[in-house]
Amino acid sequence: MSDAVSPLAIPFPTMPAIDGVVPRVARAGYKDWGRCDLTYVELAEGTTVAGVFTRNVCCSSEVELGRLNVAQGQARALVVNAGNSNAFTGYRGREAVEQIMDQVAGHLGCLREQVFVCSTGVIGVPLPKDKAREGVANALGAPECDWEEAARTISTTDTFAKGATATAMVGGTKVTISAIIKGSGMIAPDMATMLGYLFTDAAVAPAFLQQCLSAANTRTFSCITVDSDTSTSDTVLAFATGKAGNAPLTSFDDPGADAFAAAIHEVCRQLAHLVVRDGEGASKFIAVTVTGAVSDESAHRVGMAIANSPLVKTAIAGEDANWGRVVMAVGKAGEPADRDRLSIGFGGTWAARDGLPLADYDEAPVAAHLKGQEITIEVDLGLGSGRAQVWTCDLTHGYISINADYRS
Amino acid sequence: MSDAVSPLAIPFPTMPAIDGVVPRVARAGYKDWGRCDLTYVELAEGTTVAGVFTRNVCCSSEVELGRLNVAQGQARALVVNAGNSNAFTGYRGREAVEQIMDQVAGHLGCLREQVFVCSTGVIGVPLPKDKAREGVANALGAPECDWEEAARTISTTDTFAKGATATAMVGGTKVTISAIIKGSGMIAPDMATMLGYLFTDAAVAPAFLQQCLSAANTRTFSCITVDSDTSTSDTVLAFATGKAGNAPLTSFDDPGADAFAAAIHEVCRQLAHLVVRDGEGASKFIAVTVTGAVSDESAHRVGMAIANSPLVKTAIAGEDANWGRVVMAVGKAGEPADRDRLSIGFGGTWAARDGLPLADYDEAPVAAHLKGQEITIEVDLGLGSGRAQVWTCDLTHGYISINADYRS
Repeated sequence: MSDAVSPLAIPFPTMPAIDGVVPRVARAGYKDWGRCDLTYVELAEGTTVAGVFTRNVCCSSEVELGRLNVAQGQARALVVNAGNSNAFTGYRGREAVEQIMDQVAGHLGCLREQVFVCSTGVIGVPLPKDKAREGVANALGAPECDWEEAARTISTTDTFAKGATATAMVGGTKVTISAIIKGSGMIAPDMATMLGYLFTDAAVAPAFLQQCLSAANTRTFSCITVDSDTSTSDTVLAFATGKAGNAPLTSFDDPGADAFAAAIHEVCRQLAHLVVRDGEGASKFIAVTVTGAVSDESAHRVGMAIANSPLVKTAIAGEDANWGRVVMAVGKAGEPADRDRLSIGFGGTWAARDGLPLADYDEAPVAAHLKGQEITIEVDLGLGSGRAQVWTCDLTHGYISINADYRS
Repeated sequence: MSDAVSPLAIPFPTMPAIDGVVPRVARAGYKDWGRCDLTYVELAEGTTVAGVFTRNVCCSSEVELGRLNVAQGQARALVVNAGNSNAFTGYRGREAVEQIMDQVAGHLGCLREQVFVCSTGVIGVPLPKDKAREGVANALGAPECDWEEAARTISTTDTFAKGATATAMVGGTKVTISAIIKGSGMIAPDMATMLGYLFTDAAVAPAFLQQCLSAANTRTFSCITVDSDTSTSDTVLAFATGKAGNAPLTSFDDPGADAFAAAIHEVCRQLAHLVVRDGEGASKFIAVTVTGAVSDESAHRVGMAIANSPLVKTAIAGEDANWGRVVMAVGKAGEPADRDRLSIGFGGTWAARDGLPLADYDEAPVAAHLKGQEITIEVDLGLGSGRAQVWTCDLTHGYISINADYRS
């Protein structure tokens, strides 16, 4: 955790404990810092799991093994290492992950495939096995902690702890989701860079849990970007203990399935926004809405081109209604667009319509909007009914300061 | 032209005049600045032309008309407006361009399709016709200027004037190329963002001139990036007056065609490097070499993913040999790569080979290399024989300062 808190930070919410989920933290000492850096979450027998992972082809062993483990659908524990991503460390990195899986599985008397390991931090340094072994041993005997402490312990360059919660009625039973996430840089489309964990007491079949998580991912985590860079370790896992006692959800035909999926979506949306709000150096939260595209997918790509444009992001940092840079970003997206049908607005005020600056354009309300922390950019392509919304932050001196000397 | 000169600047070279080419500059007053901002280059009768243009679909009228004009292959004049890009200005912007074409064509007694107009500067403000008319009139009567003055007059946020020259022997006749370029931001693949002009006294058929220019563009301008943003106005034009008296070049079967193509390529490479050297906020020039890819195209895309990564560029700014960020950028390129065959080096020293940090990696020579201004990053994918080289600059506080308040 960094000292200077993001100006866009949101206080950690009051988050209920989840029956069947026990988080604990310990100090493994992966870096020379005076804080806990290993999070261990024990999950009740019968817990199901789903996951989405980075598409970076140079992914870590944690991601490779996590993908395999999700396939069998059951989970008993989660271990998160902070300070060392263990990515690009070859067979030695993989051995460290397998050691943790074996150690926890031996303790719980479960299959090692039911132990999920994630690591975040610097790339290229094998996770030290001795520190991992001692850290895990400490964590197994540590007292239960609260969500905020767990959220703080999985963090690296984050400036505030991030959590979200929601409930849903499933066939007369109230089920609860509590979730934590870390991430503030190396954030990009196709699974934003981060580690996120959703825990619910609902009873959910693994395949349906995966269906809900994947659908939510498409419209939340895959719609945020801080710097267009995609981590080698990004992972979001959802765990369902079944302790709420509802009839297990297996498809959208089951009572309450829609409500549960909506709650998963809502939690993912909140988590995704929190990551953007902690974007490295961020001073403004930017929502980009694209309408009138030839398809939703096309709208998404146009939105991401805008959200990833350094020139758009620096203009917002400078509180400059430079819609010309938005036009540029639309044009470079490689998607169908017609300069003479394009409309651009900020904060609900059109600056240009149908390819021309508005004759009576009053920049005053736009200038006032851009002085705020919550910015909206509206783009209408005027071609079809495709639409999408994506979220990003501005690009400031803070981003440069954080990233020009992160490793040293 | 900006006050603070890039630390990577190169002095303007001694550039020979080209027979049949007369540059002149004048003040149109597109902005409230005390400098010339309109460049007019008169070309001898019989001059042939070729061009490459931005792929941004929201391109300016200048680009649309330039594409059409190139198709007929003949040129008599070039007009470059600085301070207003005239992009996204609808029919009014187009009328301003057509007015300039007509005014010059009337003066020279040529077809208006033989008058090439380019504009660079802020987007969304129609080029004022009255200022354009008066500026052109002034330029038509202005004295001939030298290349450096022309290079300075086409500039906007550039911090130094940029030119390059080369010669070639074509069938016993020496031909000369002199070229100028502007550009320092909104620079990205598929025609980097800039305006560039090559002038030669060689006699060259338009189709062959286009063939040479397009080939050079693929390996030079399309291999540079400053900020991944693609301008709506990028244009490179090549003009050949034929005054050298060589037998006209029509294909690679003609004597001297290879030498001429090589000279065009060399001038384009120099111009492209100059643009990177004036990258907004740049403090280091970075050459990224990718080998071992499955194809040259794949190597190019991997190289551009590295060159466009904010995390790689800030690491270089911080003189940090953070090869993990290079791994990340390779992995996000979406191209074939195998983590366990990947090798990464800086300044000719491998930091990681075959997916593992080198056991005996000595960071001292790498650290010394990174303190310099000319940085190389070597990536070997270990898969095939595809290779590419691309060029970029680091990402610094200077970029943010320049772009957070450009328009105001």
